[in-house]
Amino acid sequence: MSDKEQVTAAILVIGDEILSGRTKDKNIGYIADYLIQIGIDLREVRIVPDVEQEIVDAVNALRRRYTYVFTTGGIGPTHDDITADSVAKAFGVGISEHPRAIELLLTRIRPEDLNEARRRMARIPHGAELVENRVSTAPGFMIENVVVMAGVPSIMQAMLDNVSARLKTGVKMLMETVEADSVPEGAYAADLGKIAEKYPDASIGSYPSFSTGKFRNQIVVRSKNSETLENALADVRAMVDRLTAERLQK
Amino acid sequence: MSDKEQVTAAILVIGDEILSGRTKDKNIGYIADYLIQIGIDLREVRIVPDVEQEIVDAVNALRRRYTYVFTTGGIGPTHDDITADSVAKAFGVGISEHPRAIELLLTRIRPEDLNEARRRMARIPHGAELVENRVSTAPGFMIENVVVMAGVPSIMQAMLDNVSARLKTGVKMLMETVEADSVPEGAYAADLGKIAEKYPDASIGSYPSFSTGKFRNQIVVRSKNSETLENALADVRAMVDRLTAERLQK
Repeated sequence: MSDKEQVTAAILVIGDEILSGRTKDKNIGYIADYLIQIGIDLREVRIVPDVEQEIVDAVNALRRRYTYVFTTGGIGPTHDDITADSVAKAFGVGISEHPRAIELLLTRIRPEDLNEARRRMARIPHGAELVENRVSTAPGFMIENVVVMAGVPSIMQAMLDNVSARLKTGVKMLMETVEADSVPEGAYAADLGKIAEKYPDASIGSYPSFSTGKFRNQIVVRSKNSETLENALADVRAMVDRLTAERLQK
Repeated sequence: MSDKEQVTAAILVIGDEILSGRTKDKNIGYIADYLIQIGIDLREVRIVPDVEQEIVDAVNALRRRYTYVFTTGGIGPTHDDITADSVAKAFGVGISEHPRAIELLLTRIRPEDLNEARRRMARIPHGAELVENRVSTAPGFMIENVVVMAGVPSIMQAMLDNVSARLKTGVKMLMETVEADSVPEGAYAADLGKIAEKYPDASIGSYPSFSTGKFRNQIVVRSKNSETLENALADVRAMVDRLTAERLQK
């Protein structure tokens, strides 16, 4: 293993609209894919409502536990957009209009249209750095290890691109999938468990899916060590081949 | 308001495959939609890895806080399926093979194929009731206020149908959407905030989305009181109409 440190993360989705089922979240999967590509381990996700104390508690629980916390949602101009104020409260810092954020808003909004509600989008907790985006111009921000982003997917994605160069990254997780459709999960479970025990620095998962009345199994091997990955993969493939041959002989 | 009590819930998704981005969760949105239909308020969601202590801690935090907790994932036959044992540990109870669960497995699996790994799927914490499903026959279970379900969506859905008759339900949340594309969010934010203040027993949200270079806004009014819903909706519609007319005159 490399001596690069392990970099971990949590996602905090802020939004009544996700909890009510009205909006189907598209950000968790996108951020998960993004983080694994840059060597950051996503360890936990929480979805909380637009309630200040819930946001404060979740931000404080997660920021102490993981290298980074990525929040999505609640940074627009309306009364239900309370993320920036809640994050300031979580850190115990003040919040006020950030001159550069106003400047960014004015690239899209005429000065006479920059009303009080829109100015809310420029309220940034003290000590935070802006996370800009070209899609909406209204910025997110990063305060210590917490990155605050929009909920609209295209804007969130632009913010993630903007902030990623500022993040420290760890050893990238390597991942390979073995198709195991020819053997039922219950028939390979014991042998797979032994392989998993043999490689403590790999994570081996078995994932069934079900459609048109038939199960499909995939075995996924993950490791940060390429040698471990190759050895564990070879064992898994040999196991699937052996069990497949045994079943054909029955 | 009715004097029926408020019934709340959390979802706990258990699965490395979601955190690694490999599998995109399809259960949260489905359960959210389902619960709102039967008058249960979804208040929080957590996604945790296949790590016993993480599952135990999350189950214990959530079951004390909400009327119900719905877990998905980790109840198959492989070594990474540790949900049943973790839930037993969270409740401090034993776990062993449940005769009815074995019976259910035998409706699909021949007795000579019921190996140790498959028998794991019949291990049920003491004091739990089974939650059956016709798709895979391997049951989930309900222990006190925690409902443990499969991660495969079609199986999870069958389990949710099976368990729903056993759940107490509250007053159903009513929800209506007003399209507000003709006015930007920043132009109606102040007025909408005043309407939200006027109706404390309604929850009013403004949800922008962005595609093909254009924002689209929807204002959602939610309340359990039908009169409040109608009055708040009328105010929102009048506001959108007034601001639209003002913009046309400019």
